[in-house]
Amino acid sequence: MKVTISGGVHGNELIGIYLVKTLQKELPNYENISVDLLLANPKAIKECRRYIDRDLNRSFTQEALSQDSHIYEYERAKVIKERLASTDFLIDLHTTTANMGVTIVLSDDDPISANIAKILAAEYEDVRILRWFSADEGAFINSLVPHSITIEVGPICQGTLDATLFFKTKRTLLAALRALEREERMKEEIECYDIVGYMDFPRKNGELDGVIHPELVGRDYELLHPGDPIFITFDEREIFYEGEPRFSAFINEAAYYEKGIAFCLCEKSSL
Amino acid sequence: MKVTISGGVHGNELIGIYLVKTLQKELPNYENISVDLLLANPKAIKECRRYIDRDLNRSFTQEALSQDSHIYEYERAKVIKERLASTDFLIDLHTTTANMGVTIVLSDDDPISANIAKILAAEYEDVRILRWFSADEGAFINSLVPHSITIEVGPICQGTLDATLFFKTKRTLLAALRALEREERMKEEIECYDIVGYMDFPRKNGELDGVIHPELVGRDYELLHPGDPIFITFDEREIFYEGEPRFSAFINEAAYYEKGIAFCLCEKSSL
Repeated sequence: MKVTISGGVHGNELIGIYLVKTLQKELPNYENISVDLLLANPKAIKECRRYIDRDLNRSFTQEALSQDSHIYEYERAKVIKERLASTDFLIDLHTTTANMGVTIVLSDDDPISANIAKILAAEYEDVRILRWFSADEGAFINSLVPHSITIEVGPICQGTLDATLFFKTKRTLLAALRALEREERMKEEIECYDIVGYMDFPRKNGELDGVIHPELVGRDYELLHPGDPIFITFDEREIFYEGEPRFSAFINEAAYYEKGIAFCLCEKSSL
Repeated sequence: MKVTISGGVHGNELIGIYLVKTLQKELPNYENISVDLLLANPKAIKECRRYIDRDLNRSFTQEALSQDSHIYEYERAKVIKERLASTDFLIDLHTTTANMGVTIVLSDDDPISANIAKILAAEYEDVRILRWFSADEGAFINSLVPHSITIEVGPICQGTLDATLFFKTKRTLLAALRALEREERMKEEIECYDIVGYMDFPRKNGELDGVIHPELVGRDYELLHPGDPIFITFDEREIFYEGEPRFSAFINEAAYYEKGIAFCLCEKSSL
């Protein structure tokens, strides 16, 4: 089985980048898996930016992959597609400014990917599973391979490193490789979260008009009830949640401001 | 007296940007001061990046201001120089990923600037004064005006907003304007910090080889003693502080990775 570990799909998420660089020097020996280490967006890494022209992790569409382009990430996507042609399992490393702890994101309904996520969540109390089956199907790097997990850790600012999260990510990644090496299987069900909706910031004529309410800051994976304060406008008006009870996630993620997502809404489920 | 308030000298430091936009709609009335509101780096603001070609806040050198340039910030610097030609007092708004609280940075040894800093530090218990008389003299936007303070708040990730810090910055800024309006004077001495040195991250062949030690994270303005752990390398070796006792500041500021500054060393003084 060939496993690819990718860091730097977003060039300002430093933990994945430096973890890949570290493993390039000291990768454990495996018998049943071969490991390929990929720094996905070299130009964005060099400039410490999320991306140069377009989000690389939205650049694996049929359209982007099939035409010559002036967009750096579209060209890089074609190169990565070749590189991943023989990959069976991808582990993609990301960070978030939200208080998401160590989250294993599943972007496809695939039992082999889910199995690894379950093993990690069972082994470490601080690991959660989040299913995000996006409408943007085929746009993610994961769409190039049959099986994959994303390891998403936070809170951490873009362009910075954090020792605790770095070593937690490393521990989780090595446990995933060990499970693949040993062909571990987990039959028991385990708790997971499903993203079912999004909340945008308050806006006036499209422009931001407020921020996350102080009482919601950092409360990812907590249950949000109708009437809970969620935003405060720049003129200090509080805005309250009006929907069904839901769990929140990716609260105040920097990269989602431009996508119109202040936080995500989740339901708890089992996997 | 003409006062200019600048936000977005760094385009991904959102608090200053949205505070300037807010004040454009609801500025209090003043009798003795006129207030000009400046969004300093519009292209970097649009792209939510610190800068496009060069740090704008290092682009006010004689060299940058005197020659035609392909560098966006050098051209913008010339425009800002004209805009600030009649400004007496500049209040420049910044954020940091470090746990700096609300810090008034003084970049020149000027009693009129220091007076406003002292008034703010005396009024609010959570406001500190930091003197950073850089060797880069003349490079900062402050060098264009006779008097100035920088309001630097953190911790906050680049590209994000935070309600608590937003309203604290607004409160501090309005207090500065009030002090200028009323020509307040403060004669008492007050505590301040002076930056006297820098520590770079551990590196191998120039490349990062470690991160801030978990025990130092968030401990800005605390006293660092010889033997205190300051870094941990990627292979988990601890590195300890060896210098004189000093106060730390700007610990793990994202924008300083490229400048080779992991944190600053300060001495306590009085102003």
